[in-house]
Amino acid sequence: MLDVCLPGTGGMMPLPNRWLSCAIVRAEGRAVLLDCGEGTQVALKEIHFGFRAIDAICLSHFHADHVSGLVGLLLMLANSDRDEPVTVFGPPGVAEVVAAQRVLAPFLPFEVRTVVLRPGATFRVEPFVGTCAAAKHSGPCLAYRLALPRGRPFLPERAQALGLPISLWRTLQRGETVEHEGRRVEPDEVLGPPRRGITVVYVTDSRPTPALVDLSRDADLLISEATFGDPADQPRAVETRHMTFVEAATLARQAGVRRLWLTHFSPALPNPLDYASQATVIFPGAVVGRDGQCETLRYEDPA
Amino acid sequence: MLDVCLPGTGGMMPLPNRWLSCAIVRAEGRAVLLDCGEGTQVALKEIHFGFRAIDAICLSHFHADHVSGLVGLLLMLANSDRDEPVTVFGPPGVAEVVAAQRVLAPFLPFEVRTVVLRPGATFRVEPFVGTCAAAKHSGPCLAYRLALPRGRPFLPERAQALGLPISLWRTLQRGETVEHEGRRVEPDEVLGPPRRGITVVYVTDSRPTPALVDLSRDADLLISEATFGDPADQPRAVETRHMTFVEAATLARQAGVRRLWLTHFSPALPNPLDYASQATVIFPGAVVGRDGQCETLRYEDPA
Repeated sequence: MLDVCLPGTGGMMPLPNRWLSCAIVRAEGRAVLLDCGEGTQVALKEIHFGFRAIDAICLSHFHADHVSGLVGLLLMLANSDRDEPVTVFGPPGVAEVVAAQRVLAPFLPFEVRTVVLRPGATFRVEPFVGTCAAAKHSGPCLAYRLALPRGRPFLPERAQALGLPISLWRTLQRGETVEHEGRRVEPDEVLGPPRRGITVVYVTDSRPTPALVDLSRDADLLISEATFGDPADQPRAVETRHMTFVEAATLARQAGVRRLWLTHFSPALPNPLDYASQATVIFPGAVVGRDGQCETLRYEDPA
Repeated sequence: MLDVCLPGTGGMMPLPNRWLSCAIVRAEGRAVLLDCGEGTQVALKEIHFGFRAIDAICLSHFHADHVSGLVGLLLMLANSDRDEPVTVFGPPGVAEVVAAQRVLAPFLPFEVRTVVLRPGATFRVEPFVGTCAAAKHSGPCLAYRLALPRGRPFLPERAQALGLPISLWRTLQRGETVEHEGRRVEPDEVLGPPRRGITVVYVTDSRPTPALVDLSRDADLLISEATFGDPADQPRAVETRHMTFVEAATLARQAGVRRLWLTHFSPALPNPLDYASQATVIFPGAVVGRDGQCETLRYEDPA
């Protein structure tokens, strides 16, 4: 299973009742944070999600509302006695941005690594497999797909039929070949068909694009920016390179995702719920995100 | 009159119910912000104090909890259509720190100036006259004194006795000499004795020192850090170069200030009011600061 949460849902600037948009995804006790604007450390405390497990931070781009909480987050991790490395992923320039943030935190009890990603790159942050695509914003910007893979099921009846002792089962389950009574046994002989894992996609700040439809394809959850609620703001969405609720819902529908959470609301949108129907009429499963929204996504077949 | 407010009162890290310590002082419609940690832009919105009038930001030192909200604040000013310059004062290194913050905000519609201050320096931010002293912390740190001077009273009965027309009064009141019927009239002839202005002193992060007593002398308000409430934490205050409630109250008493507000509470101090008596027993006017605390300080003689 995978826990996902929206500590904040605001764009541009933090407000008294709305933290800046970010997301945190956790599985097997390890977590990845997506974006880290000013106040994210407080937003994480408010959801009681266990920030110490954050092994990686994926930055969409380098506008302050997505980055300027980084130094505070790193210092909070330092104060929580973390000593394992933290990796910050982002578009070209991520090393320079992290270095600038660390002018205020030159000494940390753990290593901060930076990794430049280009659209299409794949990366691993255990237990996740990440990929990214180009978002269409003013300047380089990445959308992220985090997949929690699921192993193929082990079929004990086949293992028994082959006369394999239980001591070899685990190795086969991991996908490794074993030798038994002079014969090589391949994992395929005792494993069932591939199983669907759990996938979360995070898109902000961007116009909708075919590349984002591809990135989001068949995801369990698409977290998408939806800066503007009112369809009359469509020209502003084009101009500022953001999306309306309608566009985010259309992206979700085209990609065939299972769930859609809208986030990154304009400060000029005090009550995003007022525009919920703009999204649900296109994608009935659309949910207008709220600060602190959390859900546990489970494998579709619990067996 | 002078308005002063504590948007936040926390040390080290912002908490869900406590912003990082800072202060804002306003007179004649212009404001000075003292320190700017993460979230200060939100804290300023919560007090509805009119952040657009901030002409200067005085940084005590460059620990993140006093600086990392700067980029967000500058962007908020930019979004409020400000175009007048903003000056950032601080110890040596202030230019580099501001430059690092501005990596995330390279383009602003106003100039950001930086001014290095050394202990004892005087500076002007209309209508204030500022001075600073060395605080005793880990690394260079400044405490600030902001004075709102008050002009000498104009004595109309003397001006009338000298036969001066009203059209010359304003010039004399400004302290300039005038000519009237072939005679030089000096301001001293029509001005009363000097009058007390209003002075606010801001001390954080620091141990108490004689220099801070001197800086705070006779102030209308001393805003002092008081990181630790429990007297048992005295050794920790020494070790971390902060103050206890007792030490801040003693500083206020030694300096003969009129009011004392305590701030910059440790995250380990959830209820600072529990320790109020530690301060009031030494300085009866001590007030345990709370986020959003504001007061208007008036000239002692309203005439």
